[in-house]
Amino acid sequence: MDAVIVIGGDGSMTGAKIFQEEYSIPVIGIPGTIDNDIFGTDFAIGFDTAVNVAVECIDKIRDTASSQDRLFLVEVMGRDTGHIALRTAIATGAVAVLVPEGPMSVKELHEHLSYLKSKNKSSNIVIVAEGNPTGNAFEVADKLQKLQSSYEIRVSLIGHIQRGGSPTAADRVLAAELGTFAVESLIQGMCGLMVGVINRKMVLTPIEKAVNERNGLNEELLRISDYLSV
Amino acid sequence: MDAVIVIGGDGSMTGAKIFQEEYSIPVIGIPGTIDNDIFGTDFAIGFDTAVNVAVECIDKIRDTASSQDRLFLVEVMGRDTGHIALRTAIATGAVAVLVPEGPMSVKELHEHLSYLKSKNKSSNIVIVAEGNPTGNAFEVADKLQKLQSSYEIRVSLIGHIQRGGSPTAADRVLAAELGTFAVESLIQGMCGLMVGVINRKMVLTPIEKAVNERNGLNEELLRISDYLSV
Amino acid sequence: MDAVIVIGGDGSMTGAKIFQEEYSIPVIGIPGTIDNDIFGTDFAIGFDTAVNVAVECIDKIRDTASSQDRLFLVEVMGRDTGHIALRTAIATGAVAVLVPEGPMSVKELHEHLSYLKSKNKSSNIVIVAEGNPTGNAFEVADKLQKLQSSYEIRVSLIGHIQRGGSPTAADRVLAAELGTFAVESLIQGMCGLMVGVINRKMVLTPIEKAVNERNGLNEELLRISDYLSV
Amino acid sequence: MDAVIVIGGDGSMTGAKIFQEEYSIPVIGIPGTIDNDIFGTDFAIGFDTAVNVAVECIDKIRDTASSQDRLFLVEVMGRDTGHIALRTAIATGAVAVLVPEGPMSVKELHEHLSYLKSKNKSSNIVIVAEGNPTGNAFEVADKLQKLQSSYEIRVSLIGHIQRGGSPTAADRVLAAELGTFAVESLIQGMCGLMVGVINRKMVLTPIEKAVNERNGLNEELLRISDYLSV
Repeated sequence: MDAVIVIGGDGSMTGAKIFQEEYSIPVIGIPGTIDNDIFGTDFAIGFDTAVNVAVECIDKIRDTASSQDRLFLVEVMGRDTGHIALRTAIATGAVAVLVPEGPMSVKELHEHLSYLKSKNKSSNIVIVAEGNPTGNAFEVADKLQKLQSSYEIRVSLIGHIQRGGSPTAADRVLAAELGTFAVESLIQGMCGLMVGVINRKMVLTPIEKAVNERNGLNEELLRISDYLSV
Repeated sequence: MDAVIVIGGDGSMTGAKIFQEEYSIPVIGIPGTIDNDIFGTDFAIGFDTAVNVAVECIDKIRDTASSQDRLFLVEVMGRDTGHIALRTAIATGAVAVLVPEGPMSVKELHEHLSYLKSKNKSSNIVIVAEGNPTGNAFEVADKLQKLQSSYEIRVSLIGHIQRGGSPTAADRVLAAELGTFAVESLIQGMCGLMVGVINRKMVLTPIEKAVNERNGLNEELLRISDYLSV
Repeated sequence: MDAVIVIGGDGSMTGAKIFQEEYSIPVIGIPGTIDNDIFGTDFAIGFDTAVNVAVECIDKIRDTASSQDRLFLVEVMGRDTGHIALRTAIATGAVAVLVPEGPMSVKELHEHLSYLKSKNKSSNIVIVAEGNPTGNAFEVADKLQKLQSSYEIRVSLIGHIQRGGSPTAADRVLAAELGTFAVESLIQGMCGLMVGVINRKMVLTPIEKAVNERNGLNEELLRISDYLSV
Repeated sequence: MDAVIVIGGDGSMTGAKIFQEEYSIPVIGIPGTIDNDIFGTDFAIGFDTAVNVAVECIDKIRDTASSQDRLFLVEVMGRDTGHIALRTAIATGAVAVLVPEGPMSVKELHEHLSYLKSKNKSSNIVIVAEGNPTGNAFEVADKLQKLQSSYEIRVSLIGHIQRGGSPTAADRVLAAELGTFAVESLIQGMCGLMVGVINRKMVLTPIEKAVNERNGLNEELLRISDYLSV
């Protein structure tokens, strides 16, 4: 065994680092996590697929939502981060998105929804990241229902559906790009690094840094999400 | 207005009947309900689509399930009936299915799973109909987890995802068949009846009977489901 | 080896029969062919999946068709039979279907399309079975274009896309039903037979008969297809 | 009417420019073309969806291809460019891709396939862009079949299937980003420009330049495609 290429998230990267140190075999990491919160890359393998699965599910939910006076709180994966939630919200035209990175209280959500109602905007999908600090989808639904009774609130969990499915074209191309770059980096004598893509350029990040820092939400997408939901 | 054709479930059929009596306009009903529990037809429009949506979701869940030591309880639609649950269970190779029509206690489920474990059979998907009398998926999960601790139990709700989606070919062909038969029946002077298909023959059932009786689970599928899960 | 269960079409069945005769090992056949032309069953495994794949492709083609003044000739599988073509045509609202079992000349097709045009009916999808005796989709397109020039004709081949894909729920349930019945038949001492489902009842047919006779097109669906395309 | 936002390809952009000049109403363009060859953006709306549709179709074709000794030439859209072909080839693990931007003769293709065969590499999918200068898929197939007879060559056209379908999450997010930026640009008094995204930054390009120049193939992806197909 000449070298090891590890694909995964924080846990796999940490393991890879320890492996390299113990066995003195060069290791290169490839970010693969649907949560997309690993530092050192704009996109991890699996993220695009997970977002598409969530969007397809919500398209189906919307078929019902739009024909009835209901609000759907849809919980998507993301224990510590709102990456999936944010993109899913924009892609499905959700009226609000609750993420760990910028919490919105249930009271604020209620006011936002009331404002939309007063403007006669149809408002039936709210995306909730798994790790939303103001409560999971069921808890938010309970609190929100107590604040108003003019419409019925339903909860839908995309949950584990999101961990499967055939990979999208973008994820496959990303895997080819990162995989090629990982092999080339090893050949050039690199090790202890994670490959990534930032602003469409291939980059290398020390595994320690990739694990210790966080990939924050895209500020521009947050702004667009606010913009579109008013 | 010469005649009315109504597509829907029990509620729509009852309304159609009242409409005919009040306005003396002939009415023919077409069964359209994903639950498939309306009497007078083997299949209602929407049922095949709903089962396929559930199966596609569970295929994605299984991608995770099979790689980890977990049991997934997947709740599918069916407030009063296990039609969707039963077909979904067979199509996904579930190890058990909990339906209103033939309740299985949590203790029985536990014993069945322990038996499979003793035979080294992989057992990771259990389908729970929404209206399961021994509890919804979350309740069954809680009770089951208390009876054993060797594997982790997760819950997934297909829920409202199942009410949407593009109709399958079979549902479209069924709609064409029933729709044609409905029009022809009206032309022949029929009314107050619901069209349906039983053993691949077009049949007519008085709306009252369609509403008051129930479409029971297919005995043969129940037997096959038991057979395959052992 | 106590017994053999063979899944396939005519070729596999014939082979199974020879195998049984040569080695004196009991054989039971299960019909599995997307063409659905094997005798002794209403539906062969794979047929429902193939029709759904064709319908999904045509839904995508229609997105373009409906926004432009074009006629699409879509060729689907079926070298000797129009089973896939007929169901696909009904499910996609095609204005005509060309099948081996009841040939329509290009002149007749042209007259039918002209009639629809005179009635201002939108008419943009025609389904052509691979084995259409009046020509494949390209040949029909050429001849048809010569008869008129008011709209552009495009050809689309679903072709080999149709041989793949994840099986539908109906195909999986059918496989469970036929598979269970095949095992039970063997246990009861049957052999040289093919299992099948006719009018939703499990039936057995001598393999020789299954191979030598043909599963004709459903007369009722032919009638509905004519009815809907006028 | 205060301003116009136009979504489309070269034709729409040219029209938009003329409209602005004639009516003195400010116009901003948004690139929307599945071919992705418009200058001034890495990605046009619709491109990601078209690539995913092609990849899903080829996944289905591959189910057959891998079980038989066949080579499939799959033609995808792209009259003047290989953007779709290149990404599709990488995503599906094709052994070669024929694009307008860097023609490969049938003789070169034959030698490449023979080389792979000599290395015992399975080689069953070749992607051909619609506008491939050495022939369309049928023509390449004919010439290639004449050069060898050890395997059967089949042709599959993804064609118009690729122009439809529900948009992917990435296309929807891109539409939200470009749409927001287009509105903001108009508010700031910009006009006669096309919005775009280059290396994940929003940029503006004069419509004339967007129409007159070309978005070349990604050099890095070309290199990776070569790398993976050997």
